[in-house]
Formats: sequence, structure tokens, C-alpha cells
Amino acid sequence: QCDLTGWWENELGSKMRVDAVDSQGNFTGEYHTAVSSAQKPIEPSPLLGSQHLDEDGQCTFGFTVNWKFSDSTAVFAGQCFAGDSGEEVLQSTWLLREKVDSLPSDWKATR
Amino acid sequence: QCDLTGWWENELGSKMRVDAVDSQGNFTGEYHTAVSSAQKPIEPSPLLGSQHLDEDGQCTFGFTVNWKFSDSTAVFAGQCFAGDSGEEVLQSTWLLREKVDSLPSDWKATR
Amino acid sequence: QCDLTGWWENELGSKMRVDAVDSQGNFTGEYHTAVSSAQKPIEPSPLLGSQHLDEDGQCTFGFTVNWKFSDSTAVFAGQCFAGDSGEEVLQSTWLLREKVDSLPSDWKATR
Amino acid sequence: QCDLTGWWENELGSKMRVDAVDSQGNFTGEYHTAVSSAQKPIEPSPLLGSQHLDEDGQCTFGFTVNWKFSDSTAVFAGQCFAGDSGEEVLQSTWLLREKVDSLPSDWKATR
Repeated sequence: QCDLTGWWENELGSKMRVDAVDSQGNFTGEYHTAVSSAQKPIEPSPLLGSQHLDEDGQCTFGFTVNWKFSDSTAVFAGQCFAGDSGEEVLQSTWLLREKVDSLPSDWKATR
Repeated sequence: QCDLTGWWENELGSKMRVDAVDSQGNFTGEYHTAVSSAQKPIEPSPLLGSQHLDEDGQCTFGFTVNWKFSDSTAVFAGQCFAGDSGEEVLQSTWLLREKVDSLPSDWKATR
Repeated sequence: QCDLTGWWENELGSKMRVDAVDSQGNFTGEYHTAVSSAQKPIEPSPLLGSQHLDEDGQCTFGFTVNWKFSDSTAVFAGQCFAGDSGEEVLQSTWLLREKVDSLPSDWKATR
Repeated sequence: QCDLTGWWENELGSKMRVDAVDSQGNFTGEYHTAVSSAQKPIEPSPLLGSQHLDEDGQCTFGFTVNWKFSDSTAVFAGQCFAGDSGEEVLQSTWLLREKVDSLPSDWKATR
């Protein structure tokens, strides 16, 4: 069964810690990003999300990161897979919502 | 100040209820989608997310929806704006992660 | 049958002119954007793309805009629909690729 | 200077051939996809796009693929980089627009 609890690292060097996953699949944790488009120094930031609890270990998941050092919010959506050597691999994509001044700038707010 | 608590409806007719936002900006709620790519009947599904608590009422936010009637997970990222008549408007984008069988199918898993 | 030839305007006020569509579905034209994230003044920019030639008038299409006033490139993908009053409506999404200095910045290059 | 002319292969095994790039940066070519969500057998499909002609070899580009074996259209946006051993590497993202029956299904048409 897939369980996101633990430390994960991506190809950019960002790391995340997922705390205990509850019986609903919800979890909290902390995201240590290696990259940033913000002016201020990077700080570890809280994450909050949810995973499915499928028996086959291939669950989909999603989480939100509320950046401590910027006005932005990131969301990630992905799936767990068994890697070649039996370890788990997460595949995910993300959106980064940056704060903009007004609705006419909304078109450029999301990477 | 921006507070997501309450009911929101989008242009597709999907509705969501956001419960009390805590002092960290975290919230739970329920998403009633009007559209689905799944086989099973639609059911209201739990959401879990986080918002910034900026004083200017233009906060960014993100949340995860763990679909009850499918293996998929959706994430939304957006920002709150004051509308023309003073009411709040949410602008958001989303990713829908669908479960795929194996890594070679990962490329098509996200809408 | 769907034919993209002509002038189109989106909800942001951007306009595009599509010249004659050839027998392969290929076309050229010019995009007059109303919005920009670049420093320099906006200029009309050439577009180049392709559409399917389905008989039902619901063809999908795609095109590239090579911005004259910036290092960036935009791509659009969409579909033609018949609107309520019989006129054609285009629904599309886009990616804006901005130039970045080096591979480690690649993660933030696309909106 | 960056020139997309030639054969390129991605990590999924898809290959593309870009023919001569003209003085405007426009090009044609053929995309041989290794993956598909369509029913019919895969066929090489024509591509059409445009690149910037920056002297530094880090140009952005975009192109459209008009699939021969499906109603769908794909667009790619990316940038050229010099790799570790001096060869060129392309980084790109894509959208795949699939044909849907009607406007209410538009939300799910793009991966």
C-alpha cells in the first residue's frame, strides 16, 4: 500500500517531509524548496494534502504548499509508482500561483 | 481581509463549501463537482487546503480534492479578488491527476 | 466546416488575424496581444499554425506566436465550437515560454 | 546560434525531424510520437513552428503537431540549451487538445 509518510527529494534538489497519513488519507508536512522566484530567502514551508489509500500502491495524491517567504501558493498533483528496484517513486506536476495586483493581471499569475 | 469560508460556485456549476479557516490559513470543506470524467456517479468529496492571510483581501490559496467516486485527485491554485460590486471573486486554475497503470503512461495522466 | 480564417478576439481584448487556411490545414496570421509580461512595447507578432479539417465544424487547432518584442514564444491549442447564436467560438489554452539564463531556471520558464 | 534543424529524441522515445529553418525562424518537420491516447495506430505527423534567432544559442521556440491518426492537436513550447558536453538540449512542455463533443465538455479537453 502506498504511504507518502517520510522524506522525498526531487530532481531539482527540493525535499519534502510528509508526516503521518491519517485514516482519511490526509497529511501535513514541510516543503524545503531548492528553487524560488521570490525576493526573500527561502524558508521551509508547511504543506497540507491528501492521498488515496488504494491497496495497489499506485495511489494519486495532491497537496498545497503555503510559502512562508512569499505571497504565493503552490499545488502539486501526482501518483506513486514502484520504481525499478522496488522503491517508491512519485511523479507529480505543479502549479505556482503568484499574487498579482488586479484581475487584468490574472492571466500571468500561474506558472 | 480575505476569508474563503463559505459557499462558492464556478462557471460550470460546481460548488464548494469551505469551513472555518484556522489561524494558519488552513481549511477543510467539501467540493460538489458538476463535471466528471469518471464512470461512477458524482459524490461530494472532501477538500483540504490553505490560504494566505494578507490584510489586503487579495490572498492566494490552494486546495486538494480527494475524489470519493474515483481514483483521481484534483488540486486548485488561485487568488481572491474584489469584484465590481464589492463581492469577492475567486480566480483559479486546476490540475486533475488520473490514475494510470504504470510509469510509461504517466505522460497522459494529468489534465 | 470549421475555417479559422478571419479576425478573432478573446476576453482579454487580444485579437488575431488568421490568413487563408491551405489544403493541409496550415495557416499564417498575426497576433495583436492586449497583455504582456515584457518590458518593451507590444507589437503585432506573426503566428503560424495548423487546424484539422473535420466536416463537423468542431476542429481542433494549434498555433505558435513568435513575439517580435520579446524573447518569448507562446503556443495555443484549442477547438472550434458553434456558439448559441450560430457563430463560431474558439476555446483555447496556452503556454508562454519565457527565456531563462540556464537549465536550473527551466522550472520557472513556462506560464 | 541555435538552429532546430535536425533530428531530436525525447525521454519517452518520441522523435522529431525539423527541416530547414527559414530567415523568419519558421520551420516544418515531422513528429514520430512513441506514445498516444488515440485508438488508431500511430503515424508520423506534420509539425509546423517557429523559433527565435538569438545569437546566444538559447532561443525559445514553439510548434504545432497536427496528428494524422486522431482529431487531436498538440502544441509544444520550449527553449534550447547547451548541454554538459557541448551538445544542444531542448527543454519543452506541451498541451494536447483532444476533440470533445460540445462546450460543456471543454473543461476536460486539454492535457
